[in-house]
Amino acid sequence: MTGALLHPDRLFPAEPGTRAIARRLYEGVKDLPIVSPHGHTDPRWYAENQPFPDPASLFVVPDHYLFRMLYSQGIPLEALGVPRQDGGAVETDPRKIWRLLADHWHLFRGTPSRLWLEYVFQEVFGIDQRLAPDTADALYDEIAAALQQPDFLPRALFERFRIEVIATTDSPLDDLAHHRRIAESGWQGRVVTAFRPDPVVDPEYEGFADNVARLGELTGEDTATWIGYLAALAARRRVFIGHGCTSSDHGHPTATTRDLGRAECEQLFAKALAGNTTAAEADAFRGQMLTEMARMSLDDGLVMQLHPGSFRNHNKHVFARFGRDKGADIPSRTDFVRALKPLLDRYGNEPNLTLILFMLDETTLGRELAPLAGHYPILRLGPPWWFFDSPDGMMRFRRLTTETAGFYNTVGFNDDTRAFLSIPARHDMARRVDCAYLAELVADHRLDEDEARALAVDLAYRLVKRAYRLDG
Amino acid sequence: MTGALLHPDRLFPAEPGTRAIARRLYEGVKDLPIVSPHGHTDPRWYAENQPFPDPASLFVVPDHYLFRMLYSQGIPLEALGVPRQDGGAVETDPRKIWRLLADHWHLFRGTPSRLWLEYVFQEVFGIDQRLAPDTADALYDEIAAALQQPDFLPRALFERFRIEVIATTDSPLDDLAHHRRIAESGWQGRVVTAFRPDPVVDPEYEGFADNVARLGELTGEDTATWIGYLAALAARRRVFIGHGCTSSDHGHPTATTRDLGRAECEQLFAKALAGNTTAAEADAFRGQMLTEMARMSLDDGLVMQLHPGSFRNHNKHVFARFGRDKGADIPSRTDFVRALKPLLDRYGNEPNLTLILFMLDETTLGRELAPLAGHYPILRLGPPWWFFDSPDGMMRFRRLTTETAGFYNTVGFNDDTRAFLSIPARHDMARRVDCAYLAELVADHRLDEDEARALAVDLAYRLVKRAYRLDG
Amino acid sequence: MTGALLHPDRLFPAEPGTRAIARRLYEGVKDLPIVSPHGHTDPRWYAENQPFPDPASLFVVPDHYLFRMLYSQGIPLEALGVPRQDGGAVETDPRKIWRLLADHWHLFRGTPSRLWLEYVFQEVFGIDQRLAPDTADALYDEIAAALQQPDFLPRALFERFRIEVIATTDSPLDDLAHHRRIAESGWQGRVVTAFRPDPVVDPEYEGFADNVARLGELTGEDTATWIGYLAALAARRRVFIGHGCTSSDHGHPTATTRDLGRAECEQLFAKALAGNTTAAEADAFRGQMLTEMARMSLDDGLVMQLHPGSFRNHNKHVFARFGRDKGADIPSRTDFVRALKPLLDRYGNEPNLTLILFMLDETTLGRELAPLAGHYPILRLGPPWWFFDSPDGMMRFRRLTTETAGFYNTVGFNDDTRAFLSIPARHDMARRVDCAYLAELVADHRLDEDEARALAVDLAYRLVKRAYRLDG
Repeated sequence: MTGALLHPDRLFPAEPGTRAIARRLYEGVKDLPIVSPHGHTDPRWYAENQPFPDPASLFVVPDHYLFRMLYSQGIPLEALGVPRQDGGAVETDPRKIWRLLADHWHLFRGTPSRLWLEYVFQEVFGIDQRLAPDTADALYDEIAAALQQPDFLPRALFERFRIEVIATTDSPLDDLAHHRRIAESGWQGRVVTAFRPDPVVDPEYEGFADNVARLGELTGEDTATWIGYLAALAARRRVFIGHGCTSSDHGHPTATTRDLGRAECEQLFAKALAGNTTAAEADAFRGQMLTEMARMSLDDGLVMQLHPGSFRNHNKHVFARFGRDKGADIPSRTDFVRALKPLLDRYGNEPNLTLILFMLDETTLGRELAPLAGHYPILRLGPPWWFFDSPDGMMRFRRLTTETAGFYNTVGFNDDTRAFLSIPARHDMARRVDCAYLAELVADHRLDEDEARALAVDLAYRLVKRAYRLDG
Repeated sequence: MTGALLHPDRLFPAEPGTRAIARRLYEGVKDLPIVSPHGHTDPRWYAENQPFPDPASLFVVPDHYLFRMLYSQGIPLEALGVPRQDGGAVETDPRKIWRLLADHWHLFRGTPSRLWLEYVFQEVFGIDQRLAPDTADALYDEIAAALQQPDFLPRALFERFRIEVIATTDSPLDDLAHHRRIAESGWQGRVVTAFRPDPVVDPEYEGFADNVARLGELTGEDTATWIGYLAALAARRRVFIGHGCTSSDHGHPTATTRDLGRAECEQLFAKALAGNTTAAEADAFRGQMLTEMARMSLDDGLVMQLHPGSFRNHNKHVFARFGRDKGADIPSRTDFVRALKPLLDRYGNEPNLTLILFMLDETTLGRELAPLAGHYPILRLGPPWWFFDSPDGMMRFRRLTTETAGFYNTVGFNDDTRAFLSIPARHDMARRVDCAYLAELVADHRLDEDEARALAVDLAYRLVKRAYRLDG
Repeated sequence: MTGALLHPDRLFPAEPGTRAIARRLYEGVKDLPIVSPHGHTDPRWYAENQPFPDPASLFVVPDHYLFRMLYSQGIPLEALGVPRQDGGAVETDPRKIWRLLADHWHLFRGTPSRLWLEYVFQEVFGIDQRLAPDTADALYDEIAAALQQPDFLPRALFERFRIEVIATTDSPLDDLAHHRRIAESGWQGRVVTAFRPDPVVDPEYEGFADNVARLGELTGEDTATWIGYLAALAARRRVFIGHGCTSSDHGHPTATTRDLGRAECEQLFAKALAGNTTAAEADAFRGQMLTEMARMSLDDGLVMQLHPGSFRNHNKHVFARFGRDKGADIPSRTDFVRALKPLLDRYGNEPNLTLILFMLDETTLGRELAPLAGHYPILRLGPPWWFFDSPDGMMRFRRLTTETAGFYNTVGFNDDTRAFLSIPARHDMARRVDCAYLAELVADHRLDEDEARALAVDLAYRLVKRAYRLDG
């Protein structure tokens, strides 16, 4: 290891001429503010502004990127402090958990987790040593001490990170108390909510019928009826919009959409409430709800996001013992061409609607998504998501979409993270990779450098604000 | 922008040593004649040799690559002069349409359309300014004036482009009058036809039964019977061969082939004429017709081309308002391994048959197409088509096929275009990318440069003539 | 051609700085011993230690990579000496066969076969001329003469190749006589067997019921019953383990696994013995047997390998005339996410089980295999197989898996070959490509060079020994 953890030219093309172009482009974007339109940070942090806990609880225990890799190599989740559903014993000494990470840090060679965390070490904490068994304690102590300083409180970091606006992702059942408290605090940080209705539109979500009943209580609508249910959703959207919300988000197993008649909707809804939809009916209901949401968006202006294609909780044993979101969600093959047609037939040419598509199946990028987004006015392509939110994933995304959909049917970057401290690392990675891609186009004379310069700013800052309607 | 629009090293690898190899290879192929075995130029142009219309009508209105991108960003097709089915008003001022293109030219950054059109600007019209709002009128005037010059008449351009032979694509119902007129004119340009029987072999084609009836009239065969229908097709193939035709082309939604018994063929045909095939039966009928065409090719020597995998007219609204071919055809997942088996079981080992496969699903390149073409004597791989007729698409095609199928199971380049003026641009792009790919193999010592030199000529010129039997 | 056939920098990145890194990494691994845990060399060679036959019989006649390409370009398999099932006449003059290869050597430009064979020519036989029509006879004579020398006997080559251990692949019905003879000979070469039960676990395998009956005879178990059948398999595994076996291998059309109740197993087994399973039942039975093998592995420690996704003997004519394994196996689309779930639900979290997954569908690498292997403790990713055992295939494998699964969920290289003389060529290719990949990560500062150095050794030598439990 030579000196610092991070090389200033990291992720730039190796060929010196191309690297020089990438450097110049990056200079023009590296200090731009961060616009984070989709993510999973906890609004409580900004509301309460309390210190983050110890290094293990901050970086390891909640990060399924990290613990899934460690688990794949035989380390029990219990040893990593991941809480059991049954309350059974798990490791509680954060230093021990941290040392386990350090002992297995070599597993992360070549992964984005490694790059993100080293960015945090160096840029947030000023650390210049690689994590290793013999540096584990020193790093632990350094980070633990820093976290107690006022400079490392959530709001201070928010400002230091130059976050212009960040969206959290909340259920329609959430009371948005933290958002209210942030607003009332007088703090100038812009934290908005986003509307994620999965718990009340997915018949297979845990507690669906109860959730719908609570939705009725929250809104005073009769959510036992289809019409009341739709009215309640529209009402919660209005409340969310009152807290800065500009987008909805939909995490469905498939990209299915439907455009059913009212009678069929009512029947499906009744079955869903009764808890006896088949898998196909549940899929159809979710698909219908996307079309309903599109209709509501025409009224209230929310930008739609669709995140399809994840087989959730694939590991039966891990799900039973530790619950959801434990690194066992696996992508699966996704169709967009036929799945989206009902919604597109109905609303695909609307001038004031935006539907941002994400994917976990890269084969769809060149074959389906770029051709669709390069034609339909409502469609835009979200950045590479999850397993593909990585240097190679981002580069493939550009290489597979630009020739057909161009740059302006994409929407900049989403960090999509729970890991607040990694936000600058993630945006920096995206900016570097986009500059690397643009530098390649300049180097082989597909683009002039003045155009690449403008594009770099668009990709890092302007497109996301426009697509998510955050420039208002 | 530095001087000219086009850099002489464009599309070559950035690494200087590799670029130098690519340059040397390109020197050996850049001036080779153009062989264009598959495309959609209008034979009327060569027959009548009249001036092309204004810049907008020439470049924008008929080019679905251009207007699909503009439409995706909210520009109505009416504003681009695309004719409506109902004859409703659309923009008719070509200068206004041209300015719309100029205003949105940034949308095409990174796309092949940009590269093709800039090649046309510089190499055909001698323009060295980038299209932009402030240059739109000047470029318009310059192009409009040039188009009135004798040097820009179709035949003059044909010769200037060094086109050795070009194939148009015609329906069996076409009377080939333009081809006859070209032949009778004494002009030496070689324009041949290609046999595209979709209107008479696809039960789902608009007017199928009427088309088959007209086929009967044209040939004097009783096309109400299966045997008469086959005889009529064979007869039209003979007429086409009389006009230089060496290939047939088949644009099917899937790669399905069938090898059915006569009774089943007759039943399907009767249903098709009656207009009541199911989707599966229509697919089966088209698949059977591929096998019938293969059998006819054994007699008359036509090379077959299969273009499967497009979901045509995906946008219901655009189709209703503007009709077919309006940029709304979307690729979809395609299977070749099982789909082609019936035809391959019957004719896959024939020494005198050639079936050239195209694709819109790049996942099939390494997994299915290269392994199939690297084994079956009748199979060859067509160049990357449509959305993949692009620098990255071509490079991926070579990277995904060469190791398994080699170079000699591919067939050179197809421009496959309606845009006559872009033909040299498209062939130049293909030659550059192939030289770039070969240069990489030389640079990492997988190939010697003398071999790469020979291969570059094969890929640019020899393979296409041999595969399409145009060297006779 | 400049001097030697092989350039010392072949397969390294062209950019000089990156190439220098790759060279340094390669220096650290090029002379490491070869560990070959999966392949198809004939144990008879090591047992009898007789000279290999003439160049054509050694290199052309048994190599489906070579003759499939020649066949695809119209050369009859008969002319290449491939034996007919009916005993009909085929070419028997090895020199003529060799000349056919030389005449068509250009077909292999850009293929791994070319690189492997040139390595053998230069490194094994000291040849420095390219194969061509005018050098064919000289090369033939040189190779033929060398093969008669003691230095070219199998055991001498084994030692010269620095093979630390090699596994053959044998049926449970094999008596392992050659392995016994090797063990008894006192020769120190380590040749182990691997357990490939397809003939006795796949109801669609030729002679399945007879094979199961023979399994009973070999073991003294009543293989007409489900329990006796399982006991017989366990018994043969023990015998194989006695001959050094550390792994089983399963070549199935799909990745289907099942976890059925005993009654259903017994019914399926009875149907399989009676030869009347449907295709779906045969698939289910094979899938169940994978789960049974996993259970046995928990007892006896064999590492499992699954090779799914090949459509075997696709060419009906070639299969009828020449039989299996004649270059007509074609990959097909493969699902892992749903297919593996039954086995993973049962055994996916076992600390002492290893299941190594191979693929012929590269779309699964990033979407399914890396996410699965980056989570489940039992899963590891086998190296790119067959059509993807190539420079670009290996590079894509790393690029599509590393960011999600890291390096340590992969298992080094398999040569998987019948072509004994090509073994060093194949391992050398894998080492070069891995060094090239690592050099790229170092060059763009995703990895430090000390880590890359350690990784190169892990990928070339350590991981394979650990994963296949060959370090015991």
